[in-house]
Amino acid sequence: MARYYIVVYDVNEERVARVHRILRAYLQWRQRSVFEGYLEGNEVKELKRKLNSVINEEEDSVLFYSLPSDRVVRSFHLGRPPDEFDNVI
Amino acid sequence: MARYYIVVYDVNEERVARVHRILRAYLQWRQRSVFEGYLEGNEVKELKRKLNSVINEEEDSVLFYSLPSDRVVRSFHLGRPPDEFDNVI
Repeated sequence: MARYYIVVYDVNEERVARVHRILRAYLQWRQRSVFEGYLEGNEVKELKRKLNSVINEEEDSVLFYSLPSDRVVRSFHLGRPPDEFDNVI
Repeated sequence: MARYYIVVYDVNEERVARVHRILRAYLQWRQRSVFEGYLEGNEVKELKRKLNSVINEEEDSVLFYSLPSDRVVRSFHLGRPPDEFDNVI
């Protein structure tokens, strides 16, 4: 059964574009370094495999939160509205 | 009633240390740019006021997620374990 994921990456600049591209194929972009969306178990596996093949285990970290549904989470932001393209080319 | 918060900031380097310090007074550090913990309604108000007094509304953004409890969320990470002090002095 699909769960709702919030994924936050902290990776070296050299690998940001690749990590961003991988996450974007599975999830919706939310803010710099943050993606969200529903994933099935097999998609989580695939995503983990792809990220692990790109990240440097000693320098990079990708944090996953999962929730039973997006209905349990509320969100808001302070400051400027998210703008996807100013941070990653 | 307290809710469980996950807060992710994306702020200009000049303001990272100040934003980090404010968040740290209310929440537990989790990964670079990510804090979590329980907040009461009045604490959320206070935290928002303090952050708004530091961030630049045109350049910075702080994203808040809130959950009824930490019991609805699971988490794991890929790559290196979080290490608080290598990113902010």
